[in-house]
Amino acid sequence: MSFDCKTFAIIGGDKRQLYCARQIADDGYEVILGGFDKVLSMRGVSVLSEIEAIEKSDAVILPLPCVDKDGYIPSAFSDKKISIKELEPYLCTKRIFCGMKDKLLSFTKLLNPLMINDYYEREDFVLANAYVTAEGAISIAMEKFEGTLNGAKILVCGFGRIGKALVTLLKGFNPDLTVSARKPQDLTAIRIAGAKAVHTRELLTLDKFDIIFSTVPSMIFECDLMAKIATDALLIDLASAKGSVDYEAAKRLGIDAIHALSLPGKSAPKTAGKIIKDTVYTILEEEHR
Amino acid sequence: MSFDCKTFAIIGGDKRQLYCARQIADDGYEVILGGFDKVLSMRGVSVLSEIEAIEKSDAVILPLPCVDKDGYIPSAFSDKKISIKELEPYLCTKRIFCGMKDKLLSFTKLLNPLMINDYYEREDFVLANAYVTAEGAISIAMEKFEGTLNGAKILVCGFGRIGKALVTLLKGFNPDLTVSARKPQDLTAIRIAGAKAVHTRELLTLDKFDIIFSTVPSMIFECDLMAKIATDALLIDLASAKGSVDYEAAKRLGIDAIHALSLPGKSAPKTAGKIIKDTVYTILEEEHR
Amino acid sequence: MSFDCKTFAIIGGDKRQLYCARQIADDGYEVILGGFDKVLSMRGVSVLSEIEAIEKSDAVILPLPCVDKDGYIPSAFSDKKISIKELEPYLCTKRIFCGMKDKLLSFTKLLNPLMINDYYEREDFVLANAYVTAEGAISIAMEKFEGTLNGAKILVCGFGRIGKALVTLLKGFNPDLTVSARKPQDLTAIRIAGAKAVHTRELLTLDKFDIIFSTVPSMIFECDLMAKIATDALLIDLASAKGSVDYEAAKRLGIDAIHALSLPGKSAPKTAGKIIKDTVYTILEEEHR
Amino acid sequence: MSFDCKTFAIIGGDKRQLYCARQIADDGYEVILGGFDKVLSMRGVSVLSEIEAIEKSDAVILPLPCVDKDGYIPSAFSDKKISIKELEPYLCTKRIFCGMKDKLLSFTKLLNPLMINDYYEREDFVLANAYVTAEGAISIAMEKFEGTLNGAKILVCGFGRIGKALVTLLKGFNPDLTVSARKPQDLTAIRIAGAKAVHTRELLTLDKFDIIFSTVPSMIFECDLMAKIATDALLIDLASAKGSVDYEAAKRLGIDAIHALSLPGKSAPKTAGKIIKDTVYTILEEEHR
Repeated sequence: MSFDCKTFAIIGGDKRQLYCARQIADDGYEVILGGFDKVLSMRGVSVLSEIEAIEKSDAVILPLPCVDKDGYIPSAFSDKKISIKELEPYLCTKRIFCGMKDKLLSFTKLLNPLMINDYYEREDFVLANAYVTAEGAISIAMEKFEGTLNGAKILVCGFGRIGKALVTLLKGFNPDLTVSARKPQDLTAIRIAGAKAVHTRELLTLDKFDIIFSTVPSMIFECDLMAKIATDALLIDLASAKGSVDYEAAKRLGIDAIHALSLPGKSAPKTAGKIIKDTVYTILEEEHR
Repeated sequence: MSFDCKTFAIIGGDKRQLYCARQIADDGYEVILGGFDKVLSMRGVSVLSEIEAIEKSDAVILPLPCVDKDGYIPSAFSDKKISIKELEPYLCTKRIFCGMKDKLLSFTKLLNPLMINDYYEREDFVLANAYVTAEGAISIAMEKFEGTLNGAKILVCGFGRIGKALVTLLKGFNPDLTVSARKPQDLTAIRIAGAKAVHTRELLTLDKFDIIFSTVPSMIFECDLMAKIATDALLIDLASAKGSVDYEAAKRLGIDAIHALSLPGKSAPKTAGKIIKDTVYTILEEEHR
Repeated sequence: MSFDCKTFAIIGGDKRQLYCARQIADDGYEVILGGFDKVLSMRGVSVLSEIEAIEKSDAVILPLPCVDKDGYIPSAFSDKKISIKELEPYLCTKRIFCGMKDKLLSFTKLLNPLMINDYYEREDFVLANAYVTAEGAISIAMEKFEGTLNGAKILVCGFGRIGKALVTLLKGFNPDLTVSARKPQDLTAIRIAGAKAVHTRELLTLDKFDIIFSTVPSMIFECDLMAKIATDALLIDLASAKGSVDYEAAKRLGIDAIHALSLPGKSAPKTAGKIIKDTVYTILEEEHR
Repeated sequence: MSFDCKTFAIIGGDKRQLYCARQIADDGYEVILGGFDKVLSMRGVSVLSEIEAIEKSDAVILPLPCVDKDGYIPSAFSDKKISIKELEPYLCTKRIFCGMKDKLLSFTKLLNPLMINDYYEREDFVLANAYVTAEGAISIAMEKFEGTLNGAKILVCGFGRIGKALVTLLKGFNPDLTVSARKPQDLTAIRIAGAKAVHTRELLTLDKFDIIFSTVPSMIFECDLMAKIATDALLIDLASAKGSVDYEAAKRLGIDAIHALSLPGKSAPKTAGKIIKDTVYTILEEEHR
């Protein structure tokens, strides 16, 4: 790696940011945490106020998302609320790395968009995060399901980044695996990968499954589909926002449906922190080249 | 399948036995539970007293182990104690399937050893159980470890049945995998399997790991070895009985060491119950042939 | 499957077309071969003149590419030359499936572009063909290399469709695998897949390999790079057209470089024929819906 | 590695021995070839007469098998016949490594059995060789079969060392895989490995396959079984000696049956030579310890 940034301020966030801080410090850079009042000390890392941290840094790393709907930076390790408005004057001369840049810009006026990099917009970040999500989903399945994945009847709905990662990982357990998708090339890829391919529109023709992973960002699991294929199933919904399951109907049907949100931060914060670090480094290197 | 047994009594046990009962009933045989007072009813299965259950059956399935050190049949779903002595007169004319036959014989006089099959002595049972143990161990690792298995520095100690199953499953996650064993053919097989092979006697020369699975049935993880390779590790001890870890030393070193016993029953009772069923069927078929 | 086409004419091509004909006939459709004079008979399939075949059909399947640079349909099983100009009057009222439609249109005036489907333009076709190419390349490597793939030092250049398929297949052999690419997300995906990732621009920093697969469609393996990493290697060039290797330099350096063109037709015509059939069916179904 | 032997004579053999010589020399030991008249020179290795080579060495490596049925050491790179009787006086004071020690002893009187190690008797050698055989068999299948392994209907008969290695490797291609065996634990392991398990006695109930690998050392593929499941198949017979196929019947049925003998030496002499080297080293280290 070679780039000019020497001191990173990490403002707000959760365990991911702590791991990110640890790993950047281990690489020999200076790291200052801001908005981590509950963290008393951390080997090789300074813990200061948000403003001090920003002032002493060459670049600032904000979490994903970088601000909540009220304009505060999420901060799991602080009892204080961190207002982006208050930090704006200090941030405006700094290089910023954040997730969901648009939210940041909607609450600020002084920030220069050209000095802000949104790591969440980058394919390398999203791809790595999708893999972590897939591992997290499999961990949930292994914990909750009372049989082995080996031999289990499993359905993966959707063959985007998370669906692909799930299929690759699940194949290692030799389940009875079905995958649904819409595009012909996805159905082809699913067959080559050794799973049964089914068009999404034909889900209703299938039989009952033991475990279902839904990665489709729309309401797929409505009452009739669940009644047909999910009544004995553990249903893990990986779709963000509102999810892909009619949870009321699931409750009525007695189906064990889990809306698994933000898995990277929950199931593998260490890796999720590393992904932030890697993406920041890659952005800096690309510019330096 | 073809054999003469039509009615099975399942006496004592835990969730595995319930799943076993369910699956035998689904195959069209009659199943009677005894020693399951807390189970009020189960579709397609009778719940009776132990004695009635035995009397009405062609064959009796006891749990693993079939009796505890005081001569009682373990029964997670009953508040009563089930004494093997009291059941002996009813059992002595029946075909019996159990785990750890010797314990059963040590508490009884009337039973005919030729009518007792110990499924735990059979390689097909033990092999399948080892696989379930490996999945359970990986589930624990995924739940407790704060990173992904992908890219994690992992050590598997021992290359017996459980070690082999662990290596096969772990490879699917693409970790940085090292496996220790003693026999030259095991070291060869480990290399072919794409992992780093190290002789058990050279464990002390290794660096720190993120996750360690120990499958060796002897005290391997003493203070010095743990201080060298395990201080940052999640240490999952799969060795039965006393385990392979000096737990006092682990505590002093602040190491997260887990003695994971009886994983099949805990992590995958449905599959563990199926393995009992499959083994009983195979024994009956072998005789019938 | 449900669509209206009942009779297919297959005009020109090689073994792929014979397998394609066989499989369409096995599905219950009528199939007529044209331009296969050397094929005397084939169970369940008619062999006629090109014109008769076209006239009796609902749809015509042409090979990939559908015409050569002189305007003839490639036909490995005929001594005659099949001129597209002569067939044009018969083709112009038919539904046509072909590879590389533009070549066909450049030699004809009467054909209606709306009645021509280019299967080679479809992602499902190209993806499946890339997989077949990867298997073919591995077959060559296994045949020519004097060691096992297991443990061999292997480089895959490029992480497009073929590169991805190669990596997935090669991982099953547990080689010492390095993959080069340019995009950050590809480098990330390579690492997750358990291979060493290297940026294409850093190939010159690597050491010698046993086997190199090049999938990059540009001149990568020039003299200096080959002298550095390929002198002991089997070099399999999968780039179409001029390839990615300076073959003169390879000769001087004594490197075993193989330009492996058109692998699907050579190494797996049965599957390659099935891919044509599957794609034609999918196109027909999409329209029928 | 640490042992006392400094100079190795390699007497007779084929390409495996040349690779073995090359690799031992690369490790820094002195290597002398004897019985390789056609090899004019080899970097870092001496080429002498058999007797000189033996005299100057600390240990002698003979091929597998070490002598043919007439008492000559097989030597693919010499036009002379190398009689073991003539070399006996020189060999009798030397440490000897060979394959099939009993053949050697049957032609000699002076040799001390305690100074002879049979690498072919060792599990690490046999296991590694079985793996190489499996790769070689897959290479043949890929070359001869006109479709891809992906999706092909494949049968592996037997689940010994070679069968296990075949199953592991084939799974990477996602075929439709069936494996036959006799022992209940093997049938269990096959199912866990994600293949269909069938008892050997039930092979006659199966349908036709595309590719069949037979690893069973007895006549399994008689006329009736082949007529039922192999008429469209590529049949690769890996059983040594007389094989497991009725080749006359196969000819009558028009089945493409290949008796693939001695695959390690043919398909991967480099790895086969390394296996000899590794086994010799391990034996020496075990003694030195």
